[in-house]
Amino acid sequence: MGGVRFRSPSTGRSIRAVLFDTFGTVVDWRTDIASAVAGYAERHRLELDAAAFADRWRDRYQPSMEPIRSGAREFVTLDTLHRENLDAALLESGIDPSDHDAGELDELSRTWHELTPWPDSVPGLTAIRSDYIIGPLSNGNTSLLLDMAKNAGIPWDVIIGSDINRIYKPHPRAYLHTAHLLGLHPGEVMLAAAHNGDLEAAQAAGLATAFILRPLEHGPHQTTDLAPTVSWDISATDITDLAAQLRAASTG
Amino acid sequence: MGGVRFRSPSTGRSIRAVLFDTFGTVVDWRTDIASAVAGYAERHRLELDAAAFADRWRDRYQPSMEPIRSGAREFVTLDTLHRENLDAALLESGIDPSDHDAGELDELSRTWHELTPWPDSVPGLTAIRSDYIIGPLSNGNTSLLLDMAKNAGIPWDVIIGSDINRIYKPHPRAYLHTAHLLGLHPGEVMLAAAHNGDLEAAQAAGLATAFILRPLEHGPHQTTDLAPTVSWDISATDITDLAAQLRAASTG
Repeated sequence: MGGVRFRSPSTGRSIRAVLFDTFGTVVDWRTDIASAVAGYAERHRLELDAAAFADRWRDRYQPSMEPIRSGAREFVTLDTLHRENLDAALLESGIDPSDHDAGELDELSRTWHELTPWPDSVPGLTAIRSDYIIGPLSNGNTSLLLDMAKNAGIPWDVIIGSDINRIYKPHPRAYLHTAHLLGLHPGEVMLAAAHNGDLEAAQAAGLATAFILRPLEHGPHQTTDLAPTVSWDISATDITDLAAQLRAASTG
Repeated sequence: MGGVRFRSPSTGRSIRAVLFDTFGTVVDWRTDIASAVAGYAERHRLELDAAAFADRWRDRYQPSMEPIRSGAREFVTLDTLHRENLDAALLESGIDPSDHDAGELDELSRTWHELTPWPDSVPGLTAIRSDYIIGPLSNGNTSLLLDMAKNAGIPWDVIIGSDINRIYKPHPRAYLHTAHLLGLHPGEVMLAAAHNGDLEAAQAAGLATAFILRPLEHGPHQTTDLAPTVSWDISATDITDLAAQLRAASTG
């Protein structure tokens, strides 16, 4: 924690904390969810394209948070939304979830607690951690992020889940309340994310920004977020590259 | 995170998380505060018994939280209370804080962010961490606990500061809301603390309990908490001993 830290051109401040979007940026949700779905389908003799089902499940992610962002629905955790969205995705696939054991579906939904990091994530985070506070800035709830970290050896310094802020990104409060709890000015906090939309909202809230390229998050035919839409503070090919760029900029 | 975990006789459940009181239990606040006060007094040519002043400052700790626990005062962070209590302790010592630079007093008050762990704390926590979730369950705010951990290498998995729960121990909500955010039943959470009063409140809230002997927290003439008042789930001579007892009980 010594030495010169990266100074954000956009916020004009030295960065103290680098916080990470998790689903897609730190962990590869699609591979693990498809694999868990395939296992479930096999055990229950369901005809199911597991990768397509994973996409269908995830497609409900943003829409399911929208009523909470708008205030139309009281906050519920992402665990709750994942479980509701699983039922909806099953119905959409012609499978009635009420024909299935609720405990087994709960278990399938808990797969989101145990996703595998991209190969560069843990080495990159470990390097960044020597100079900066690191943590998730995710729509995951605290216990989900904690289980994920414990399971995969992700060395977070601190975990402020969405159930602590009681709001979902890209609502500005998600970014600002996290900075507040860390005792930092928003401009001292950098969001690193594979999604330009997330970075836009973080920048609008006054945070520094780093784009992380994750061209396989949505599988081999991904069409979104294949490049930074604007010039973020940093654009990196992965988290190890982010670590190298932060190190180079702070000592250069 | 494998294998058999300690089963609490009092809660009847296997423990998943071991959470620690920090001031006194994990870190030696008195030595560091006295040392910072001595440095301040020397720079400002104040006649001051630094250890006595540290005690005077800390004596205001519990009373200053009481109006918040009772609801008479809206929640403010421990950083705010520490700073207010510093002014009060100075006045009590015949020193008018308004004669002093506010920024320098802020800096002195930030000493609470950088306290030194007892020698057994980090090795003991590191050992416990391989089988359990570990974190503080402290009246410190999140940024204080994070700075302390980062500064001293305390390997917390998760930090739920009092500013997240917005209440101070021993109010039951401090224990229960922490367990809730971890996604655990209160009986799966163990509080480890050097203070019998804290353990009483944790047990009343349904948590498991471990007493940690810290006979020098209040200096060489300590008269309080020199032994467990009742038979807690575990009574340990320090955190390394707690790690050994948890290990023995879970494999035995």
